[in-house]
Amino acid sequence: MIQPVKKKKKKKKYGNLKGLPPGSLVHIGNNIVENVEIELIEYNQTLHTEIQLDTIEEATACLENKHVSWININGISDTKLIGEVGKIFNLHPLLLEDILNTEHRPKTEEFESYIFCTFKMLSKSEDSLEIESEQISLVLGTDFVLSFQEKKGDVFDPVRKRIKVGKGLSRSRKADYLVYMLIDIVVDNYYEILEDISEKIEELEEQIFDQAQEGQLAEVQSIKKTITNLRRTINPLKEMVSGLIKSPSTLIHDHTKDYFRDVQDHLIQLVDNLETYREWNAELKDIYLSSLSNKMNQIMKVLTIISTIFIPLTFIAGIYGMNFQYMPELSYPYAYPLVWGFMLIIFLVMIYYFRRKKWF
Amino acid sequence: MIQPVKKKKKKKKYGNLKGLPPGSLVHIGNNIVENVEIELIEYNQTLHTEIQLDTIEEATACLENKHVSWININGISDTKLIGEVGKIFNLHPLLLEDILNTEHRPKTEEFESYIFCTFKMLSKSEDSLEIESEQISLVLGTDFVLSFQEKKGDVFDPVRKRIKVGKGLSRSRKADYLVYMLIDIVVDNYYEILEDISEKIEELEEQIFDQAQEGQLAEVQSIKKTITNLRRTINPLKEMVSGLIKSPSTLIHDHTKDYFRDVQDHLIQLVDNLETYREWNAELKDIYLSSLSNKMNQIMKVLTIISTIFIPLTFIAGIYGMNFQYMPELSYPYAYPLVWGFMLIIFLVMIYYFRRKKWF
Amino acid sequence: MIQPVKKKKKKKKYGNLKGLPPGSLVHIGNNIVENVEIELIEYNQTLHTEIQLDTIEEATACLENKHVSWININGISDTKLIGEVGKIFNLHPLLLEDILNTEHRPKTEEFESYIFCTFKMLSKSEDSLEIESEQISLVLGTDFVLSFQEKKGDVFDPVRKRIKVGKGLSRSRKADYLVYMLIDIVVDNYYEILEDISEKIEELEEQIFDQAQEGQLAEVQSIKKTITNLRRTINPLKEMVSGLIKSPSTLIHDHTKDYFRDVQDHLIQLVDNLETYREWNAELKDIYLSSLSNKMNQIMKVLTIISTIFIPLTFIAGIYGMNFQYMPELSYPYAYPLVWGFMLIIFLVMIYYFRRKKWF
Amino acid sequence: MIQPVKKKKKKKKYGNLKGLPPGSLVHIGNNIVENVEIELIEYNQTLHTEIQLDTIEEATACLENKHVSWININGISDTKLIGEVGKIFNLHPLLLEDILNTEHRPKTEEFESYIFCTFKMLSKSEDSLEIESEQISLVLGTDFVLSFQEKKGDVFDPVRKRIKVGKGLSRSRKADYLVYMLIDIVVDNYYEILEDISEKIEELEEQIFDQAQEGQLAEVQSIKKTITNLRRTINPLKEMVSGLIKSPSTLIHDHTKDYFRDVQDHLIQLVDNLETYREWNAELKDIYLSSLSNKMNQIMKVLTIISTIFIPLTFIAGIYGMNFQYMPELSYPYAYPLVWGFMLIIFLVMIYYFRRKKWF
Amino acid sequence: MIQPVKKKKKKKKYGNLKGLPPGSLVHIGNNIVENVEIELIEYNQTLHTEIQLDTIEEATACLENKHVSWININGISDTKLIGEVGKIFNLHPLLLEDILNTEHRPKTEEFESYIFCTFKMLSKSEDSLEIESEQISLVLGTDFVLSFQEKKGDVFDPVRKRIKVGKGLSRSRKADYLVYMLIDIVVDNYYEILEDISEKIEELEEQIFDQAQEGQLAEVQSIKKTITNLRRTINPLKEMVSGLIKSPSTLIHDHTKDYFRDVQDHLIQLVDNLETYREWNAELKDIYLSSLSNKMNQIMKVLTIISTIFIPLTFIAGIYGMNFQYMPELSYPYAYPLVWGFMLIIFLVMIYYFRRKKWF
Repeated sequence: MIQPVKKKKKKKKYGNLKGLPPGSLVHIGNNIVENVEIELIEYNQTLHTEIQLDTIEEATACLENKHVSWININGISDTKLIGEVGKIFNLHPLLLEDILNTEHRPKTEEFESYIFCTFKMLSKSEDSLEIESEQISLVLGTDFVLSFQEKKGDVFDPVRKRIKVGKGLSRSRKADYLVYMLIDIVVDNYYEILEDISEKIEELEEQIFDQAQEGQLAEVQSIKKTITNLRRTINPLKEMVSGLIKSPSTLIHDHTKDYFRDVQDHLIQLVDNLETYREWNAELKDIYLSSLSNKMNQIMKVLTIISTIFIPLTFIAGIYGMNFQYMPELSYPYAYPLVWGFMLIIFLVMIYYFRRKKWF
Repeated sequence: MIQPVKKKKKKKKYGNLKGLPPGSLVHIGNNIVENVEIELIEYNQTLHTEIQLDTIEEATACLENKHVSWININGISDTKLIGEVGKIFNLHPLLLEDILNTEHRPKTEEFESYIFCTFKMLSKSEDSLEIESEQISLVLGTDFVLSFQEKKGDVFDPVRKRIKVGKGLSRSRKADYLVYMLIDIVVDNYYEILEDISEKIEELEEQIFDQAQEGQLAEVQSIKKTITNLRRTINPLKEMVSGLIKSPSTLIHDHTKDYFRDVQDHLIQLVDNLETYREWNAELKDIYLSSLSNKMNQIMKVLTIISTIFIPLTFIAGIYGMNFQYMPELSYPYAYPLVWGFMLIIFLVMIYYFRRKKWF
Repeated sequence: MIQPVKKKKKKKKYGNLKGLPPGSLVHIGNNIVENVEIELIEYNQTLHTEIQLDTIEEATACLENKHVSWININGISDTKLIGEVGKIFNLHPLLLEDILNTEHRPKTEEFESYIFCTFKMLSKSEDSLEIESEQISLVLGTDFVLSFQEKKGDVFDPVRKRIKVGKGLSRSRKADYLVYMLIDIVVDNYYEILEDISEKIEELEEQIFDQAQEGQLAEVQSIKKTITNLRRTINPLKEMVSGLIKSPSTLIHDHTKDYFRDVQDHLIQLVDNLETYREWNAELKDIYLSSLSNKMNQIMKVLTIISTIFIPLTFIAGIYGMNFQYMPELSYPYAYPLVWGFMLIIFLVMIYYFRRKKWF
Repeated sequence: MIQPVKKKKKKKKYGNLKGLPPGSLVHIGNNIVENVEIELIEYNQTLHTEIQLDTIEEATACLENKHVSWININGISDTKLIGEVGKIFNLHPLLLEDILNTEHRPKTEEFESYIFCTFKMLSKSEDSLEIESEQISLVLGTDFVLSFQEKKGDVFDPVRKRIKVGKGLSRSRKADYLVYMLIDIVVDNYYEILEDISEKIEELEEQIFDQAQEGQLAEVQSIKKTITNLRRTINPLKEMVSGLIKSPSTLIHDHTKDYFRDVQDHLIQLVDNLETYREWNAELKDIYLSSLSNKMNQIMKVLTIISTIFIPLTFIAGIYGMNFQYMPELSYPYAYPLVWGFMLIIFLVMIYYFRRKKWF
Repeated sequence: MIQPVKKKKKKKKYGNLKGLPPGSLVHIGNNIVENVEIELIEYNQTLHTEIQLDTIEEATACLENKHVSWININGISDTKLIGEVGKIFNLHPLLLEDILNTEHRPKTEEFESYIFCTFKMLSKSEDSLEIESEQISLVLGTDFVLSFQEKKGDVFDPVRKRIKVGKGLSRSRKADYLVYMLIDIVVDNYYEILEDISEKIEELEEQIFDQAQEGQLAEVQSIKKTITNLRRTINPLKEMVSGLIKSPSTLIHDHTKDYFRDVQDHLIQLVDNLETYREWNAELKDIYLSSLSNKMNQIMKVLTIISTIFIPLTFIAGIYGMNFQYMPELSYPYAYPLVWGFMLIIFLVMIYYFRRKKWF
């Protein structure tokens, strides 16, 4: 979503979709995962188990016990599996469709017995030049959380570890607190992305002030697109968290809402920063243009100084290059050095004039 | 509506309208259909019939049975027919006027025993250069749906097929679900239009970065107009769907509203994308202008380099072209090569100066 | 109000007003009508009379009968008459002030026993170059409508005719429907004005794309002012109609509100179109400026090509115009044609260079 | 406040203020009045007295009788007096602070037994080049109005006169109507200020269209600042009047609110006009810039025409100025006139080319 | 926060934070204070003590008596101390996190038994070139106020003094009034910062109107960033004060809310001024660009005047420098002075032409 290059692929996908009845499970996305992993973590204040499941049916048991169960599914390209998850956990067909469509806007939706939210995780790609976007979907039910990632990644590792060692409130709270921890870790990642952008803009600004060059406008443009995409990722995420805070559902406890409010504070600050970067970047374009104008002025000055000095002098030389028979000056013995002197005076007057005009 | 060329025709139409009492049935539009087709599809979970009607009176029967009846009318230029439909289904005169006026803004309106909505369907014309807009009007009553198209088209074919084969929920639901399916298929079409625009902008951007040419601004301008028109089509459609969701009418069931909410999600995303394209396109203008400035700089540099090198040299040649009798240099044997050498030095100094200024 | 030229006159008027106690009846406007006409049309479903009154007192009778009475007053410069109308129909002094002040913003105001609304009618002047604005004020009471026009005009003729022939609902409805018909006919006029503007912009755009000329910016500017003025006329009119729809007064029946809603739909579309024209027109300025830049580039190219070709050639000619005694080339028999050849080569190289740079 | 020049003085004042406890009475403003005048006007429908008071204690009596008492204080630099007024009329310390601070934003505030409002009066200074701003504060209590002016002025004279002659409703209404009259007279003054601005912009526009000159941008800038300051004066005044209209206090009677609504209508129109002037003025900058570009084009054309014509001709002259021994043309008898002829042809071709390009 | 230079450091800090469980106490900021000072001021209308505490435990006593206790902590880098404060005063872990994070947006939050607010204090650094930002956090409980400063400073000295001498209402009011005084003193500081900015813009404007120079755009840019940062500081502070005014908590008395409203008035004015400065500063960029254009025009004029005068003259000289054998003019005795005369005429015609065009 962040990379406009992906756009072309999207076209075909939507082309395939058209005409399908609503509720048809079709995967829309670029991450095709062959071996989808299903991970089940169960815990309460005293107990903690962490296992890999082969089939989703094995998770059925966890619906009945009173532990918090976190079922993490890495890979959503296997639509059959998603369909089975839907049947076991009794999920609405439109919700399954949203999980599979990685082009979806972040949002939260409340159903009778569970809350669904979907949002984007951002990470710098390995060569650190592009921002990669991955869709995360969460389903919060009574005592269980389903999480769907596009591909296997280590972003949730700190949460796994925190649950394992029972640090902080992690294990004494219910499933809603787990949802909070998962969202929080994703939002923390956004700070790094924004700092990268801020640094890029800073560097570019210095370069442009130094010397306007042709490629820079394309860079300004590309940063602008990144910021626009980020805004389209973070703003609905803010709405999503706000939706969780306002939710009347009993699945989210009041003391957990304090924590969601904290996440919201962070998101407000991120949006704020992003807006600042956007303005800052927009300024760069003006600076670039004025830098171009400045350069043009510089070129024009050189041209004007040289032309203005030598054109009159050449005229004088031209005068005495005329072949009239009766030109008294030609035979004066000191005419030649006098002409040189006269030319020197003109030269100096010109120099003085340009100096006073502060042209150099 | 998408094509400004149509504007001139509109004028005359409105000229005809002025002074007519409200409720007068006058067709405003460019699609004059000679043989208006009336199609009646009746179905419930077990039954399915699909027939062509000759007169609208034949449809009266369907008001009494309990099947879902879909009456699709292809062509609205026959105002007499529309008037008859109005009488049979007891439609408000202002509603009939809205059906006939293809310049109308998308909207939904609730009446005592039915809900009316009108919106635009977009399609690429056959030569794929222009976007064609066609108005669709729907009337949702108890167990029946009236749909009005400007001309015969195949856009609703997937819905017809889905009803025929009884795929998904198509046949187990009531008339409100049929309305949803019809709106959904139109919204799906919008994605293709937007992807086309996105591609056009991308191509144009590459071209402008490559070399600014005179026709490009006109193209930017034309894309801008297309986007503006799309925004004027999609935004009120979003409001329309939102109106259907908020409707207190019992004609729309709660479980169907979930589907309308899904359509609304798509429309929000479309509006979002459109806004991004609008900004992106607006940037192109600035890039074009800065590209022009860059080109000017290039031209000026060439002029300045050539002038600045040769004007002083020409002056020197001019000096020794003077005809003074007493010019000692003229008779020095090595004067000529020395002058050449001097000129060479000036030339090299200039070249060095421009290099340092990074002019070439 | 549409013509900034009128502004200067306004000053004096306001100068006169200052210091007058509120409620003083002073006419502010440019249309001084000598023979104010008072027209009385009375009708119900069976009856219809249409007479010219000499004095407003003659209209007193119509307050008592149960017919719909429409008293149309052409000309508001006679403040004494307006005062008398106020006394007979028991109108608030501030309302009379508003009727007389033709610079007033469109608005609706509800009083105990009547509803007041004031708005602008627009028409193209006879020479069709300027838009003329005339203020219309309406007072809707029980079974009567007072309408005030600045001067005699034929804009209400279709309404008169419709009442006369009893076409449509015109005569079966009450006074509120008459108010609707009067507002509707004025709004219909706006469409023509907007189509004119749209055409003007289109023409101007073609001209500017063809060739930027000095007067065009002034034209863009003038269209901008017209649009701004229209916006200031239509937007409050939309609010006015919205006020009538929301009015809790029993003077406006619910089934008439459907018609007002229809007018509002039209006004929303007009505002929408106007906004589009405004953006479109704003673009013209940028196109004009880029067109200027393009032209400058063109001029610079010609200058650069000519200079860059001939300055080096002139230098060569200058070299062999020097008068050194020892210049071996001068006596070579083929020197002259060789120099010509050398110059030709330089010329061709230059031409090739400019071709490759696509300068011509 | 309107004049940025005053800003420097403000600094010192605020510097003095810092660290003072809230409620300390400090005068912030430029108008130091030596002899503060206290004027007491008492009236009801039958009675009218108008006297100058020496001390504010003399006004105590008016708190008990049932007449409307208007105490007008010209000059607020005497903080001791203001403190005494506060004690006698039982005013809140923060309110007194607001009266003394002439940099305050217009606002209204309701207290238990009185309503306070503060706003700006604008007037053209005597030399009519600058706009002078003076703060007016009003306190409306039961049967009395306190008004505070920065210095003695004649702006309230029409109100005094109207009360004296008992014209209109002036004397039959209560103190709230007096407040209305005072605000109304100030708002009336704004119209003149705005008309002045409108005229200035109009003149400047004509000048710029005529010829762009260097000082004009500074003028556009200065008008912009004036408009910004006016907006900051009028907008909160609109809110203030709106606050009075919405006030639940019994001090303002319902029939007086109609009059305040009338003032609000005027303020809405003023804000509207101001916005139009702001846009109009902003356009001037673009016109100025495009005018500069146009001029540059003009200059470039002259340079290019002259250069392009004479540079090739000079080259030809240079050719025949070469000193080769074997130049057959030199000895042809008609060579000289032929060269002239050739030059003439080049000249004419060039002229034709520029004509076709519409360069002159 | 005001200085973009700090941004790079921030990165590392956030890097450290990532993965920590929420509620972990980590100090985010640049001010590391070695000797954290704890100051305790206790007072009521009759009593006043002021002591330095070594450990925060000593403050426990003040929770029980009925005096107002102000505990001021200078330095927040000692996370252990902050943790202890949290335990003694029973503060929420997220609140402690907010105190320690100096990058936090100003906000107020209500807890069961106390109100928390955090905001920025701005001060000019000693060399007066940069604006320093320090975070202040306040906790208002029953009869106590905790204040946290990043480092020891004298900004609260006036409040200390006012409490000591019992001036104004300082000692007769409760803890909420102390909070008001602390916020008020910080807001007063903002006025100075804004006046500095206003002066800087004014100076820069004069310089640019005088002569556009290359560094100025960078200065405009830097002022813009400062204003953006200020806006991000003041706007949420306004919301914070508004939150305190709307607070339903009994900790803030109604008569203190009047004072908070006064602070809010000041903040509205500050925001207003800031917006004005922002617009004003934005204008500077346009003035700078137009100034560049003007300068270019000036340069072009000089070039054009010199070229246009001398190029034709040089051509004439070139003509008579030709070596044709048959050039009758060459042997005319008065040819040379006649040519001079002819050149003079051309020169004068040119001068006249440029004069008429007002080029100099």
